[in-house]
Amino acid sequence: YKVPLDPQGLLELSWNVSYPEQAVHFQLLIRDLQFGLLFGMSDRGEFENADLAVLWSDGHNSYFGDAWSDAKGQLHMDSQQDYQLLGARRAPKGLYLLFRRAFSTCDPKDYLIEDGTVHLIYGILEKPVHSLQAINISAVHRGLQRVQLLKPNITIPELPSDMKTMEIVAPDVVIPSQETTYWCYMAELPDGFPKHHIIMYEPVITAGNEALVHHMEVFQCAAEFDSFPHYNGPCDSKMKPDRLNYCRHVLAAWAMGAQAFYYPEEAGLAFGGPGSSRYLRLEIHYHNPLVFKGRRDSSGIRLYYTATLRRYDAGIMELGLVYTPVMAIPPGEDAFILTGYCTDKCTQLALPAAGIRIFASQLHTHLAGRKVVTVLSRDGRERQVVNADGHYSPHFQEIRMLKEVVAVLPGDELITTCTYNTEDRSRATVGGFGILEEMCVNYVHYYPQTQLELCKSAVDPGYLHRYFNLVNRFNDEEVCTCPQVSIPQQFFSVPWNTFNRDVLKSLYGFAPISMHCNKSSAVRFPGEWEKQPLPTTTERLQEPVPRCPPTPGPRPAAPVPLNLGELRK
Amino acid sequence: YKVPLDPQGLLELSWNVSYPEQAVHFQLLIRDLQFGLLFGMSDRGEFENADLAVLWSDGHNSYFGDAWSDAKGQLHMDSQQDYQLLGARRAPKGLYLLFRRAFSTCDPKDYLIEDGTVHLIYGILEKPVHSLQAINISAVHRGLQRVQLLKPNITIPELPSDMKTMEIVAPDVVIPSQETTYWCYMAELPDGFPKHHIIMYEPVITAGNEALVHHMEVFQCAAEFDSFPHYNGPCDSKMKPDRLNYCRHVLAAWAMGAQAFYYPEEAGLAFGGPGSSRYLRLEIHYHNPLVFKGRRDSSGIRLYYTATLRRYDAGIMELGLVYTPVMAIPPGEDAFILTGYCTDKCTQLALPAAGIRIFASQLHTHLAGRKVVTVLSRDGRERQVVNADGHYSPHFQEIRMLKEVVAVLPGDELITTCTYNTEDRSRATVGGFGILEEMCVNYVHYYPQTQLELCKSAVDPGYLHRYFNLVNRFNDEEVCTCPQVSIPQQFFSVPWNTFNRDVLKSLYGFAPISMHCNKSSAVRFPGEWEKQPLPTTTERLQEPVPRCPPTPGPRPAAPVPLNLGELRK
Repeated sequence: YKVPLDPQGLLELSWNVSYPEQAVHFQLLIRDLQFGLLFGMSDRGEFENADLAVLWSDGHNSYFGDAWSDAKGQLHMDSQQDYQLLGARRAPKGLYLLFRRAFSTCDPKDYLIEDGTVHLIYGILEKPVHSLQAINISAVHRGLQRVQLLKPNITIPELPSDMKTMEIVAPDVVIPSQETTYWCYMAELPDGFPKHHIIMYEPVITAGNEALVHHMEVFQCAAEFDSFPHYNGPCDSKMKPDRLNYCRHVLAAWAMGAQAFYYPEEAGLAFGGPGSSRYLRLEIHYHNPLVFKGRRDSSGIRLYYTATLRRYDAGIMELGLVYTPVMAIPPGEDAFILTGYCTDKCTQLALPAAGIRIFASQLHTHLAGRKVVTVLSRDGRERQVVNADGHYSPHFQEIRMLKEVVAVLPGDELITTCTYNTEDRSRATVGGFGILEEMCVNYVHYYPQTQLELCKSAVDPGYLHRYFNLVNRFNDEEVCTCPQVSIPQQFFSVPWNTFNRDVLKSLYGFAPISMHCNKSSAVRFPGEWEKQPLPTTTERLQEPVPRCPPTPGPRPAAPVPLNLGELRK
Repeated sequence: YKVPLDPQGLLELSWNVSYPEQAVHFQLLIRDLQFGLLFGMSDRGEFENADLAVLWSDGHNSYFGDAWSDAKGQLHMDSQQDYQLLGARRAPKGLYLLFRRAFSTCDPKDYLIEDGTVHLIYGILEKPVHSLQAINISAVHRGLQRVQLLKPNITIPELPSDMKTMEIVAPDVVIPSQETTYWCYMAELPDGFPKHHIIMYEPVITAGNEALVHHMEVFQCAAEFDSFPHYNGPCDSKMKPDRLNYCRHVLAAWAMGAQAFYYPEEAGLAFGGPGSSRYLRLEIHYHNPLVFKGRRDSSGIRLYYTATLRRYDAGIMELGLVYTPVMAIPPGEDAFILTGYCTDKCTQLALPAAGIRIFASQLHTHLAGRKVVTVLSRDGRERQVVNADGHYSPHFQEIRMLKEVVAVLPGDELITTCTYNTEDRSRATVGGFGILEEMCVNYVHYYPQTQLELCKSAVDPGYLHRYFNLVNRFNDEEVCTCPQVSIPQQFFSVPWNTFNRDVLKSLYGFAPISMHCNKSSAVRFPGEWEKQPLPTTTERLQEPVPRCPPTPGPRPAAPVPLNLGELRK
């Protein structure tokens, strides 16, 4: 796996994962080494409380060591050296640094490498430093890159001989000279294009732009419109036709660091044919923090498809919370948790007797999301994590293959939990479509396709009404959380204190739910879905006890001298 | 340190603690070895999920190993051997087994040895067993003993030359042939006995009864009565004069496993002299589970005292919760937490400018208590644990010397937190004096003595009233939590569910408090003590990260063969 770390592409990280060894091997290419480099990991990309491998030079000698930064960003040598240097070599391209790190080191100063997003950080030392402690981390040229470090170990399925490819690329875009651009481009399938199965897709990235193309998605438009206008421009432009908002059905998604996406051998994603739109929308997120001007780009996604339909159509199902303001997060919270349920009653009704198999998942929240987890529960007992990201970032939403396919049977429950941070907000954050509203969604990719498109929940509105009454009565202040105003307005007027916050938590953990067990976003399965009992969990999954490496690095800690000659004399 | 493990005294444990090594050395004397022995530790003395050292014999060969029991009580060899056998020798008294165990092993199957109560468990193998796995733990003759394993490392202060001793012993008691007896005996100081300082005390235990005398306390009677009747009999007897209930001021307390108690060099506990009663009550708890008949006992406590008064009188202060039903625990809870506060305002008013020094502490709850912790907080930041017992048992209440003396300054807060288990109860447990009501108290021993005897809190009753109103309104059921009935009655009629439980927690974590900042149980210091703001904590103490031993035992795990000859041919 390979990813550029910085927007100029001076640092390039390659890595591979050894599950038997429970370790990651890193190769860092430094194209233009000056006086050293910091590379490491931290909870959300910050340089405080980070776990770092440091290469530094005093101008004559170079050293490598495992370090950590404290809450003030001061660097310290780690007493246990867990970044093990495997080699360093100069080559025409630059310096290659090879090192190894166990997932878990049992050193409390070290980052625990887990599934999901990892925030990699880097810093470039532009002056000689005489010791690790002398590095002033805030003065260093630095940045962060998000990757899924622990890619699943999946064998690539055999591809059929009649496979064809189609490139959905935005032709010859001039990347705008601004930090963030969402570019929209409309493509079209040939007229009369019959039903095919997409069985794989991969990114097509214009050479030289690897560090600028942040993520890309191909959406299919709604079948109810016969035609869509052509468009090639920024997604937020006033010139963009409104109808493009009806192109929201994900066909393919890629984010930096991801590789080709393969469907399982038995399944493919249907596109083409009657009942499906010919129109596709490509969306590219350009991330251009150094504001390069005039860069031209023709990136996009290459779809691999076959007319020999596979046994099963793949489907996408939405788990989590309904997009409704009744689910809200108080302001000033560092880790407020909301939970959405796909209940046993819904899966009982909507899934085939043999169940479905989830093979990939894309987690989704808006800006306040910090963690997302979906767990499968059977008979009230948690059985399996479907997908978990403890360092989730709304800026890094990829479709991820699961390490193991998850079989879901009728009667199973799928419980999706999102953790939000609203410390920088002064009023409640309600559920909804807006960028400052929140979502809690897991789009799961599965087969065989069923009619169930949405299996989501929200608190019963009657119980929320009782909550507002309680707030009115319990608090000394006269507050207007009266029923004639909207639910967001009622939330905005709650005087937030620990009691009102805790009681809201208690309400969400107690009140019955309204279920959306839907065929499409507006069509429910028949049945009673209001005031449903909250699923109860009698047995939780155990947190895995981290395995400590049998042979930790050398102790006591000492930096490893490197023979690199003099740097930048 | 030495303690009998079983009521017959067949197993005797001696141990010492090495703080530099962070390890305990055990010596176990087995007077009548049969086919082996289990010895270990578990959360509350249960044989499931226990950490065990096992000596077993198949009749020919003997083995020693570190084992653990799972949630069903099945034994397994531990993959990491942390009970290190140091030696085994036969002697006339029996077999001595010596072994060592680090406080923390970083093996998740091992018990973490912490300050406070440790529940030791033992089992005697009466038949040969062919392997560890073959041991049926439920069929073993077994039991538990509570001890404070990590005794503080305190240097014994110098004792004055004019020191005298006085034995308060119950003469020639026939221990009743029943499991539990609380025996009361009245003693009397000589007429005109002037003020002295108790500077030390120790247990006096009749030889042979070491395993029966569970704990003993000496109380001083109230000064307001001129005389108290003589009495020597069970404390719960109908013959016991009621006036003995006025003898509640603790002078000395001892529990099994404890040693002599020394006052710090600068302080002594005043007794005798004007304004103090001549009458003392000795209370002995006999624990006689094997129902021995006719055992005679003259145990008690020996006080060491001096007429040369030390610089400071020592005092005892009550921290925690007021004895009031407003603080209640819902039924069915496995770990419900109540918190009592000694606020900055009270210590500001009542403590001398130089502060006080706490040197010992006795934790107290009734039967539902599971953990007790007192923390010192200054400017909202937790600074120091005063005393903590994570495996607290109401059946093992000793006065414990602190590892380090805690200095408390005016303006400091002392926050006492008790954790309760009410899983076996069907109705709420309210605060109060009854054995099925609860308390949360830390009696701290300190000097110099001040007028402050009680620094405790309870929730504001007006806010509790709002809670009952909220319960009435929120719940569908018609419940009578009306103000005209008593608070316990209102608690008993709450329909307990997770919401009502969680909101009660939220109330206790939010509502203002009523402070008892008292000179004696009924006399408050002047000031406003109602509707006081709840102290807030901006910074919590970090849980200490357990230090792992640098040299764990041999791996992979294998039992150590012992050369003990054939056992019980």
